[in-house]
Amino acid sequence: MGKRVTIADIARAAGVSKGAVSYALNGQPGVSEATRERILQIAAELGFTPSRGTRPPSGSGAVGLVLCRPPRILGVEPFFMELISGIEAALSASSCDLTLHVVADHGAELEVYERWATQRRVDGVFLVDVRVADERLDAVRRLELPAVAIAGPGDFGGITSVWSDDAAAITDAVEYLAALGHRTIARVGGLPHLLHTVIRTEAFAAACRRLDVQHAVTVPSDYSGEEGGRATRRLLSSTERPTAIIYDNDIMAVAGLGVAHEMDLSVPRDLSIVAWGDSLLCSAVHPPLTALSRDVAAYGSVAAQHLLTVMAEGTVPSRQHATAFLVPRGSTARPSQVLADTIR
Amino acid sequence: MGKRVTIADIARAAGVSKGAVSYALNGQPGVSEATRERILQIAAELGFTPSRGTRPPSGSGAVGLVLCRPPRILGVEPFFMELISGIEAALSASSCDLTLHVVADHGAELEVYERWATQRRVDGVFLVDVRVADERLDAVRRLELPAVAIAGPGDFGGITSVWSDDAAAITDAVEYLAALGHRTIARVGGLPHLLHTVIRTEAFAAACRRLDVQHAVTVPSDYSGEEGGRATRRLLSSTERPTAIIYDNDIMAVAGLGVAHEMDLSVPRDLSIVAWGDSLLCSAVHPPLTALSRDVAAYGSVAAQHLLTVMAEGTVPSRQHATAFLVPRGSTARPSQVLADTIR
Repeated sequence: MGKRVTIADIARAAGVSKGAVSYALNGQPGVSEATRERILQIAAELGFTPSRGTRPPSGSGAVGLVLCRPPRILGVEPFFMELISGIEAALSASSCDLTLHVVADHGAELEVYERWATQRRVDGVFLVDVRVADERLDAVRRLELPAVAIAGPGDFGGITSVWSDDAAAITDAVEYLAALGHRTIARVGGLPHLLHTVIRTEAFAAACRRLDVQHAVTVPSDYSGEEGGRATRRLLSSTERPTAIIYDNDIMAVAGLGVAHEMDLSVPRDLSIVAWGDSLLCSAVHPPLTALSRDVAAYGSVAAQHLLTVMAEGTVPSRQHATAFLVPRGSTARPSQVLADTIR
Repeated sequence: MGKRVTIADIARAAGVSKGAVSYALNGQPGVSEATRERILQIAAELGFTPSRGTRPPSGSGAVGLVLCRPPRILGVEPFFMELISGIEAALSASSCDLTLHVVADHGAELEVYERWATQRRVDGVFLVDVRVADERLDAVRRLELPAVAIAGPGDFGGITSVWSDDAAAITDAVEYLAALGHRTIARVGGLPHLLHTVIRTEAFAAACRRLDVQHAVTVPSDYSGEEGGRATRRLLSSTERPTAIIYDNDIMAVAGLGVAHEMDLSVPRDLSIVAWGDSLLCSAVHPPLTALSRDVAAYGSVAAQHLLTVMAEGTVPSRQHATAFLVPRGSTARPSQVLADTIR
């Protein structure tokens, strides 16, 4: 009695999730028109008045994203632009702007959050490329910036996340290669201090142990085609030459394919290649690359909807997005017996 | 006497450009510390008080960029992310934010400008992908949004630009291929309604006529690897099979290389390939691609400095940036006599 009606009350009365109520109240996509009307009616019946409501009056009408990667690498890395496109698709429905910064280092990134919070430039932020020990998580908490980490699994001490099960995906890829008969599998991994790199590295090693892959090695990289090519050249020149390589992004996989051509190795006969990320690049090369595919734009949209919900409701539970799935193409096959013999 | 001191007055007194004065007054990079101090001193001596000044008090502290391309294509198109990185580098020095939108069509883009202007969300905008007849130019003029077109040559009826001489660059590429002995050259061009596509198409045709290239054809595309591959397959299956193809971006050139492999044609013996744009992708593939190279990030920085100047001073003359230059790599050579005979 006299108690303020909350979004949770409306959700309970309408039999929908709090997220759905939030979408409906904010005029965002994510609920059908019929559901939206039903929710709005129930909200009106309960006498709901938005508290911080759809947007605080002092709100900037913008959310922020900081990317901390060298420009040349960002340029060829399809992931971020696809993610941004998806984020935009979800934001545009609520006339929310995306403020983007590209910075050189972590220090500069922290300064941006500080400035955004002080000057109220954004109402919330996305955190990408989460590190194993990441001071940004403390920073946004301290600055009281609503935030969604695009990383996981789970929360980060109060910072909710949208995440995808990288461990399951890489396990799938290893199982497929092992089933084809590969016993020496290498992986050219991403930046080693990133959380998702660690998750992938551990899952890769565990799957290889379980499946009796005799030689399983992960080589770190910076995601550039240059380092991807160099790592491939080194792996293919070693005595324990792998018959299959998994790359942590598609540009490195394309570079690896280039090195195979350069060393006169046939793909997939002499070398199988699997790419993480399935941009148009993977189907543009010959042979087209087997890839761990996921809808990155949809991932971005879900993250944006999640952030809008966090901004409207305070904290909400982390949300798991679809796991990447293997799309087999011409770059993977049984290893040739010849090469298998050479290796043993 | 009593007349307001302008930036032009300070520039004249200091013997520097108006741009330099603007940089100095706005605390932006682009002038040395010594020059900055001298300019500030002269400004003080002349009794200069900023009018719209360094930033209007109602200014949002942000500039805007709208990209109107499908997400999947943006993802693999290195140009925009490199451009954005360069823009950011110049903006960050003056704590100016970049607000980014990705929209599906021109109508949505115009709505964004309308909203930005009405709600004063941004102090200026970049216009990219300028069309032959482009209603956005009228729109930003009408909305009195300071704007810089990243296109040219020249102004667009009051909208200043930063531009690069695409006609000269493509002429260079054609001259090189003709000198190698190519007489049937094709080009897989970009979106045909874009101004820079038209400029390149006309310059390509003119150079081919002048150099007695017997067959010169431009096929339009949407910049995707998929269409680039399809166009290549069609060209290489035609009776007037080209011995060289120029692609309007690097992802299409990579796809073209894939089609050559698929059709068992050797690059460069059977087919020479030139890519517009020289991202890391061009050196990642095998053979590495001959490319028309330019520093896209620097181009973005110049455009951002230009926009900051426009915001400070009103209109300023258009500014030409460096012309792309040819970087010959393993994908171009004399056409093989065998193939040359087949063609004749």
